[in-house]
Order: sequence, then C-alpha cells, then structure tokens
Amino acid sequence: MPKLDFRSPRLFVDAPLAAGAGIALDRDQTNYLGNVLRLAAGDTVLMFNGRDGEWQATLAGRKRPDRAEIVSQTRPQDGLPDLHYVFAPLKHARLDYMVQKAVEMGVSALRPVTTRFTQASRVNVERMRANVIEAAEQCGILSLAEVHDPEPLERWLGARNGARLLVFCDEDAPAADPAAALAQAGNGGASGIDVLIGPEGGFAEEERALLLKQPRLVQLSLGPRILRADTAAVAALAVVQTALGDWG
Amino acid sequence: MPKLDFRSPRLFVDAPLAAGAGIALDRDQTNYLGNVLRLAAGDTVLMFNGRDGEWQATLAGRKRPDRAEIVSQTRPQDGLPDLHYVFAPLKHARLDYMVQKAVEMGVSALRPVTTRFTQASRVNVERMRANVIEAAEQCGILSLAEVHDPEPLERWLGARNGARLLVFCDEDAPAADPAAALAQAGNGGASGIDVLIGPEGGFAEEERALLLKQPRLVQLSLGPRILRADTAAVAALAVVQTALGDWG
Repeated sequence: MPKLDFRSPRLFVDAPLAAGAGIALDRDQTNYLGNVLRLAAGDTVLMFNGRDGEWQATLAGRKRPDRAEIVSQTRPQDGLPDLHYVFAPLKHARLDYMVQKAVEMGVSALRPVTTRFTQASRVNVERMRANVIEAAEQCGILSLAEVHDPEPLERWLGARNGARLLVFCDEDAPAADPAAALAQAGNGGASGIDVLIGPEGGFAEEERALLLKQPRLVQLSLGPRILRADTAAVAALAVVQTALGDWG
Repeated sequence: MPKLDFRSPRLFVDAPLAAGAGIALDRDQTNYLGNVLRLAAGDTVLMFNGRDGEWQATLAGRKRPDRAEIVSQTRPQDGLPDLHYVFAPLKHARLDYMVQKAVEMGVSALRPVTTRFTQASRVNVERMRANVIEAAEQCGILSLAEVHDPEPLERWLGARNGARLLVFCDEDAPAADPAAALAQAGNGGASGIDVLIGPEGGFAEEERALLLKQPRLVQLSLGPRILRADTAAVAALAVVQTALGDWG
C-alpha cells in the first residue's frame, strides 16, 4: 500500500482543481475544519474532486476557514478497477458500513438490488453517496464509486452486460475453493466484473434459477462458516481483487 | 457454506450438553428469550458450549423461559483452523466489530498486542469474550475463539512459537501479489498461522525491525489502497483462509 499523508485532512469538493484556484467551502466543511479539527487560515488540507487528482490547499477565512487556495498537486488522478459491487441492501448503520467497506476495497460502482428476502425496503441513495465520499476522504481514494438507484434483481439481471464476469457469492456453490473457481473463470475477454452478495435470508428459488442462467458466471464459496453480508462483501472483494483485480 | 437453521435462536451455555440434560438459563438469556424474542415454554432453541456440538432444546419456565431441556444433537462439534488473529486494539465499537468479524472468518484465537502507535490504551477482555460469543451464536460457529489478555508486541514476539507462520500485513511489503506471497511461503511444516494487523498509524521503526527478524515470515500487501484496520482484518483473513486455511 502506498504511504499517504494521513496528518492532513482530505476533503472532497465538486469544483475543478488547479494551481491558484480558489475554492469556496460549504457550511459542513467550514464547521468540520473550524470546529471539529480546529483549523484556521493558513493551515493546510488535501483536496480531490474525483477528476483532477489530489491537491494541497491552504485554508483562508476570517473567523473559521470558509475557502481554500489550491497550491500544488500531491498525487495524479488514478482510476479504479471495473469492479461493481451488487448487493441486497441492509438496514441503516450496517448499510453505511457495507458501503464504506466496499469503497475501501476499490469497487467502482455500488448497485443495490432488491430481492424477495431483502431486509431493507427503502434505500437512501444520498446517504450511500455521503458514505462513498467519507470512505474516499479517509482512505485516500481519489476516484468516487458510482452509486446506482436500487432496482429489482430481475431487472438488473435482464439489463446487465453479459460480457461482464458475474461472481455470485453462493452458499450452495459446488466448488469449495474460491481461488480455484476464479482462476478457472479468469476474466479472459470479460469486460469487467460484477460481484453479487445476496440477502442474509438467501435468494428465492426463482431468483437462484435466473442467476444460474447468466453467462460468464462464477459461483464463489466463502468457506465453511456462515458470514454476515457485510463480512462476505469484504471477503469476496479481497479474494476477487487478489485473483482478478488490482491486488495481484 | 453449510445451510444452517437460522430461524431458531442459538445460545451459548457453559454447561455440558447431552440428551435429557436440564440447563438453567441466566438472567440475560431469560430476558433475551422471553422479552426480546417473546419465546415461551415449549418453544425450541439451539444450544452449544464449544465442546459438545449443537443441540436442540425445548424451553421451560412459568412466566418466562428460565431453563431448557436438551433434546437431540443437530450438529457434531467441529474445530477451527489453527489461525490466530494478532492485532493492535481499536477503540470501543470498532473493536467490537473487529472481534466479531475475526470470529466469522474462523480464527481460533484473538491476541491483542499493544504497539507504540496503538489507539486504544485499555482493552476490555470480557467485552471481547462477549463479542466472540455473540458472533458465534449469530453465525452458527460451534467452537469459541480463545481471547488472550493484551500484551506488548515485543513480549508477544519474544515468546511466540517460531514454528508458526507469521503473516505480517505490511503496507510496505515488497511483493505486490498476496496470493503469490502466501503460495510461496506455503505452510509446509508450519504449526499454525499468526495473522498480524498493525495499528492504523503503522509500526514504529524498531517494531518493524523486530518483526522482520521473525522466522517463517510472509509480508502481505493488501492492494494499492489504504484499508482501515477492521477492513484489513477481514481481507487478510479471507486471503489467508483461501490460500492456506479451511476455505481452499
């Protein structure tokens, strides 16, 4: 893992970033920098916008820092692997956590799909976006994962690009060894990877049947013990990133 | 993953379990079963004690269930891989979470080690034990991970069995591919595996020097992005369980 500057706070902003640019901070950022971190004019932060890399910036403002001047680039923009995390949403705090963890693991898109046994009936997409930003700020990730609106599993399956590999984390997977299953599938010719974690209640029979009809399917077993869905997310993404992603 | 009965609550008890045995429930269990789950005499639960497998039991009691009669064994006792999770403790809720996740991932021992940059100065070992039990109850794990008292990293390193493989999750690891690093190390002749995750502030230079002197050492890189310590725990354990543990 690269050494990052963890002493400077890292802020996501929407504005274009370039040397000499002045950035207005919003009220939350002003409050966080001034009241929580007790920073003042002259102090240094890092900024990124998902497009222009990471930049050092100097805070300005009379009482509390309400703007920043961009000084110089500290890291160039990087990309994320074409790895989508597809999941049955959990409730509240566990969904926050799951989104943050998937971002740390380097997914480029988050796709909530509702299933027959999905626990959460509503998904707060804005809150998911806030969690994506928070995890990127904390972990020095410069590209933001795309957050999709929830859709029914069947609709997602019907519309997805069949050239992508589908890694289905399946407690009934026939092959026991996840590394072997992924090595056998490879991603030869696949145009990206979708990793699917189902609801903790499992998939309904008709959902399973639909899933098993997908082209380029890998059924992944995650060991002999049951995992909570948020644990399965990190475990599956670690194994996939190691075998086929940018950890190898 | 095996199909488990997730509809019946699963309770850890200390007492020996055998057909016909009567088990007294403690106040917390009585409260949980009676007031939270609204179960009553005649309802069924699952019980395990870490030694005698999993048993179906029938609740009894006049107002709320305060004892249980053991009926029949549902699963035999299993074991856990000889996989120890060694970690710089985090604070409160994040430590709870980390302990639960390590248990789900199948570790047989939890060893907190204090380092120069460890965040948490005190470790509540009883609370760690409660989290081990909670995760085992929730995930159907029949063997309880052993919880060790915290000790300084240097003391742990000085006393550990050098025949065990030490997997050091190291952001400065030279080899990039975790699967290749583990495959090369293998565990040929190693009598168990210690997986070490350091504090989020990293190790001090002198701690690192001590670590790098250990025999049977594998330095494991966990990809190009920084991970929070609890994420690194699940990711590292997934990769290790896949390459050398009971997921393969």
